[in-house]
Amino acid sequence: MINPDRFLSDLHTLRSFGASGVGKGVIRPAFSDADIAAREWLMQQMAEAGLTVQVDPVGSVWGLAQAPSLLLGSHTDSQPEGGWLDGALGVIAALEIARSAQQDRGAPVSVVSFQDEEGRFGVTTGSTVWSGTVSLDTADHFLDREGVSFSQARQNMAHLAGDWVDPRQFTGFIEMHIEQGPWLDAAGDTIGVVTDIVGIRDMRVTLTGEQNHAGTTPMHMRKDAFQALSAFNTRLSLAFEGVVAPATVWTIGQVNLHPNASSIVPGKVTFSMQWRDSSTGRLAEMDKIIRQVAMDVAREHGMVLNFGDMLGLEPVAMDTRLRHALTEAAETNAPGQWREMPSGALHDATNVAQQMPVAMLFVPSIGGISHAFEEDTDEADLVVGLQVLADAVARLTN
Amino acid sequence: MINPDRFLSDLHTLRSFGASGVGKGVIRPAFSDADIAAREWLMQQMAEAGLTVQVDPVGSVWGLAQAPSLLLGSHTDSQPEGGWLDGALGVIAALEIARSAQQDRGAPVSVVSFQDEEGRFGVTTGSTVWSGTVSLDTADHFLDREGVSFSQARQNMAHLAGDWVDPRQFTGFIEMHIEQGPWLDAAGDTIGVVTDIVGIRDMRVTLTGEQNHAGTTPMHMRKDAFQALSAFNTRLSLAFEGVVAPATVWTIGQVNLHPNASSIVPGKVTFSMQWRDSSTGRLAEMDKIIRQVAMDVAREHGMVLNFGDMLGLEPVAMDTRLRHALTEAAETNAPGQWREMPSGALHDATNVAQQMPVAMLFVPSIGGISHAFEEDTDEADLVVGLQVLADAVARLTN
Repeated sequence: MINPDRFLSDLHTLRSFGASGVGKGVIRPAFSDADIAAREWLMQQMAEAGLTVQVDPVGSVWGLAQAPSLLLGSHTDSQPEGGWLDGALGVIAALEIARSAQQDRGAPVSVVSFQDEEGRFGVTTGSTVWSGTVSLDTADHFLDREGVSFSQARQNMAHLAGDWVDPRQFTGFIEMHIEQGPWLDAAGDTIGVVTDIVGIRDMRVTLTGEQNHAGTTPMHMRKDAFQALSAFNTRLSLAFEGVVAPATVWTIGQVNLHPNASSIVPGKVTFSMQWRDSSTGRLAEMDKIIRQVAMDVAREHGMVLNFGDMLGLEPVAMDTRLRHALTEAAETNAPGQWREMPSGALHDATNVAQQMPVAMLFVPSIGGISHAFEEDTDEADLVVGLQVLADAVARLTN
Repeated sequence: MINPDRFLSDLHTLRSFGASGVGKGVIRPAFSDADIAAREWLMQQMAEAGLTVQVDPVGSVWGLAQAPSLLLGSHTDSQPEGGWLDGALGVIAALEIARSAQQDRGAPVSVVSFQDEEGRFGVTTGSTVWSGTVSLDTADHFLDREGVSFSQARQNMAHLAGDWVDPRQFTGFIEMHIEQGPWLDAAGDTIGVVTDIVGIRDMRVTLTGEQNHAGTTPMHMRKDAFQALSAFNTRLSLAFEGVVAPATVWTIGQVNLHPNASSIVPGKVTFSMQWRDSSTGRLAEMDKIIRQVAMDVAREHGMVLNFGDMLGLEPVAMDTRLRHALTEAAETNAPGQWREMPSGALHDATNVAQQMPVAMLFVPSIGGISHAFEEDTDEADLVVGLQVLADAVARLTN
């Protein structure tokens, strides 16, 4: 039988590794001392639970049950300033369910804590390399903000590292996670069963006009890169009307103006353009609109336009069978208090889907806050999440 | 008699101090080795011309004729990447006219090259302090971008520095300068007689919304600081219609978004808002509109709004008598090829106007380009400028 108290106690113990001293905040980025200590503690818990412990070459920690098994888990590394739940929740829920399965001689359940989901090296590194999306050789050249390479960083866990884990031993993967958004909290729901992980498009756009004196250049003769950016932004929102869905999002989150001085008409701007949606068709349609609007604005404002490379992550639909088990378990454990929803955030499940059927469930984030010390979820909701996950596993393995 | 060849030759000699190696570009910022060498060369030319040379405590170089005299000049320091003319033109034209006055025993003309007009220390430092607008104690704490104080920098010229020059010996000041804008070049005119130096208002505005995950935060729940800035910018242009004049300018030249990452909804933006006009009333009306639009947008977008301190430089009307001498000289030397116009750029004359009547004349900037290595003016136009200035001086002193 799963033990909610033991589950909550383990979550709080894990929080002690890298506890920030601010609320329930955690500072446990990938390969930091706190992260490695947390992983060593996790390995011990896995071993005590009767699982076979293995660390793969990139530092992901595995607790393996007899094959074939279901795989549950997430990640225990945090953002540079993160919360106590994020990926930790999915790992500890997995540990509790796998442990009780061992104790009860139930169907085998394996556990994983992927390394660097939070992207110290730019991507969900551990699951990206394990799933074969990116080669280890390529990943080894990824740099963090301080210029440390992934290759150097993983030396910190070289004394623990063994071989790769064969994905063919797993029948499917379920990841429990906090929502990191406001929908469940706002609706008063306890459980979200994920339909899709949205696809992401991300690129840099550069508009080059003419740098000039902000006193002597008349308005009608300016080629002001900021004005062009502002026009692009306004026009884009209008052009998206009737195309986007309620859950579609787009963001200009990074703006670098040149030379960025109050007395100079800015001659150049480079900005990020990111959009997310669960439909590949809609992502492509938005791409077309973005490029058309940018070209129109560039022409009207006398700008030279450059598009950078586009990062594309395809939407991932959750597996029907796994998802069905979750919806049934949700209705049993939280009747009328759950909903189906897309995941706007990227997760390890995106990569794992390359190798096996995947599904996800969410619990509410209070105020929609995550990636911050303030991140939290009512402990009663955490327990319902554990119960739904355990129930779904039972439905899938009985 | 003024000697155009000697004038052009001196201009080219001055260019050799800090010649950038790119076209006629110059790298001669205030108190650099090149700037001090150029000032020492200028002191020698002044002495040879029969003027009494004096360097004041802030490094401005004076060539004094018998009092009372007219004062001509500008500055010989350049932007970090500047052109060969900018302030240098006005100083060398002044030198040629003062020299020929000494040779011809004409009415006395004095010369000045103010220090740090280009604002290494944030303002037109030399003339600002000399005119009493800012005290030396205050200016001594100004820092350049590398954190060097004005006090430290002027030690580089301490071996040359003497006492302050008494402004009461001058009957008026005329500054010749390149236009630094496109009007004369576009119209095919040779001379601009300045009516006013426009006033400037400059402040920082901060909009604080809510930093959030760019995947999980729905569009309708965002408090996106960039979206608020873009809305402010669009709305402001509309609100200015019917208020601004053709020569009015406004600029958002600096934008700092926080945290400036593609996957994060920006929670905060600080941006510069600068506007210029020759009417104090219009500057105030624009100020009111800016604050109102910012408040409206902040309210609608759920932003906290903060206005920084406002830098205010009042418009300066040129002296009627000096200006009249320039228009008569312009019509004589460039009949039908001159115009009256405001100066959109700030000049040393703004500060000197605190102490005496001032006037300015412009020659064309090819393509309107300045503060760049490409800055240039046809040498024939430079000579016409010299002749107009000399003629105006003659009209004022005969």
